[in-house]
Amino acid sequence: MKPVRQVFFVSDRTGITAESMGLALLNQFDNIEFKRATYPFVDTEAKAKEIVALINTAASKCEARPLVFSSIVDENVRKLIKTSAGMHMSFYDAFIGELEDELATEANHSIGRTHGMHDTERYDKRMEAINFALNHDDGITDRELQKADVILMGVSRSGKTPTCLYLALQYGIRAANYPLIPEDLESSELPRMLQPFRQKLYGLTIEADRLHHIRSERRPDSRYASRDNCRREISTAEEMFRRFNIPFTNTTHKSIEELAASIMLAAKLQRRF
Amino acid sequence: MKPVRQVFFVSDRTGITAESMGLALLNQFDNIEFKRATYPFVDTEAKAKEIVALINTAASKCEARPLVFSSIVDENVRKLIKTSAGMHMSFYDAFIGELEDELATEANHSIGRTHGMHDTERYDKRMEAINFALNHDDGITDRELQKADVILMGVSRSGKTPTCLYLALQYGIRAANYPLIPEDLESSELPRMLQPFRQKLYGLTIEADRLHHIRSERRPDSRYASRDNCRREISTAEEMFRRFNIPFTNTTHKSIEELAASIMLAAKLQRRF
Repeated sequence: MKPVRQVFFVSDRTGITAESMGLALLNQFDNIEFKRATYPFVDTEAKAKEIVALINTAASKCEARPLVFSSIVDENVRKLIKTSAGMHMSFYDAFIGELEDELATEANHSIGRTHGMHDTERYDKRMEAINFALNHDDGITDRELQKADVILMGVSRSGKTPTCLYLALQYGIRAANYPLIPEDLESSELPRMLQPFRQKLYGLTIEADRLHHIRSERRPDSRYASRDNCRREISTAEEMFRRFNIPFTNTTHKSIEELAASIMLAAKLQRRF
Repeated sequence: MKPVRQVFFVSDRTGITAESMGLALLNQFDNIEFKRATYPFVDTEAKAKEIVALINTAASKCEARPLVFSSIVDENVRKLIKTSAGMHMSFYDAFIGELEDELATEANHSIGRTHGMHDTERYDKRMEAINFALNHDDGITDRELQKADVILMGVSRSGKTPTCLYLALQYGIRAANYPLIPEDLESSELPRMLQPFRQKLYGLTIEADRLHHIRSERRPDSRYASRDNCRREISTAEEMFRRFNIPFTNTTHKSIEELAASIMLAAKLQRRF
């Protein structure tokens, strides 16, 4: 059995940055089991004291002290958290002093900026992209393809929908979704609707066993989900990608974040906010 | 005019962690304009050399050296990046040594773990939550409400859909979406369908001017979008939340990340992966 270590992510905002940095580090240690808990919106000394008590309780119950990853702007709150019995890693402490020196200016030490929506512009761009992904999911019009930043094409259940949504949320990218249906796959042409937009196309493919598994959850024992049909659809789709020089990637062993970042890079897309 | 500073986010994976940490720090400096560029998948020495050249070119063109936030596991790649003329902030350098000491074990220094999909379990949970959010968007069945982790209710365009999607993607939470339509608002009762699930309800509200703006984009000059109607719908919805003790939050000045994290906290939800 692996040794267990408690981990606290403490933030004065959402906790997403502290989690993201902490997990990147913890993923480097395979042989330890980490028990994680996130405490967002710790933005007053009173709340900080509650968290200190929680960390101290955890510390008293375990042999090894807890790890504490924090993202806290207010110095007093940060200092309070550091009085706890955990091991503290604060990227503000690590970098903000250096940055102040480099930029020859003082940090404003005000919270709520990180993921805060300063202007509604950012929100609007994001919503536009989300609505784009939702309206175009599995049903697409020519007029709208013109507005797309990128068009993801692939067989049913190859991962287009979550990737489109992630591109919208994370980068404000308008990603359209073109499902390759059996008629498309029978033809040796690129689907007519896509022909004017070849430079926007990006293909998704997937391993046949994985596709069989995913489709079987939806429609068990169907022809649609059968291993043979999955294999055939995938190999025809990949042929199409190769024939028309459409860049494509295999989604089987990639996370949605990795797919989205790969597509941003390959399609030379710039985030919209 | 604000002084301008170039910023490079360099990562061997998606760049999301480097961006997230870097932006949290940069948001502390209002009086400087940052020109950002992200370079994901920098995982070989050859790619690192290309980035070094880019940073050096930027440095030679500006008075102030570029800032470089990096998230790179491989020591050789990391060292190469640090030979560039930028100012370097690497959270691996800042913390991995301390962590190795604390955990009395060596980091495995292998990449691809951070957002990597190790088991398909994580992907499946995420997809399940996304499909849940999509299937239930603006049309919901009783049987499915039972499966929801949380049910977001609010007037049309109050921010339910993006919040549900973000809860699904970031936390694997199954969030259902219940739009309060005019008939719901005319009644003094809680909508019948929601009555068995009072402990799962969470309300979203919004400022009338903002709602008017959002609805006008969709249906300009309609009764639906009119300021008066927006005001009336919102105040009735808020009365309902108060009458039935439903926790609620105003989405107007919050980002989707903040909304999602607030709901996780208020509804005591645990992430599903």
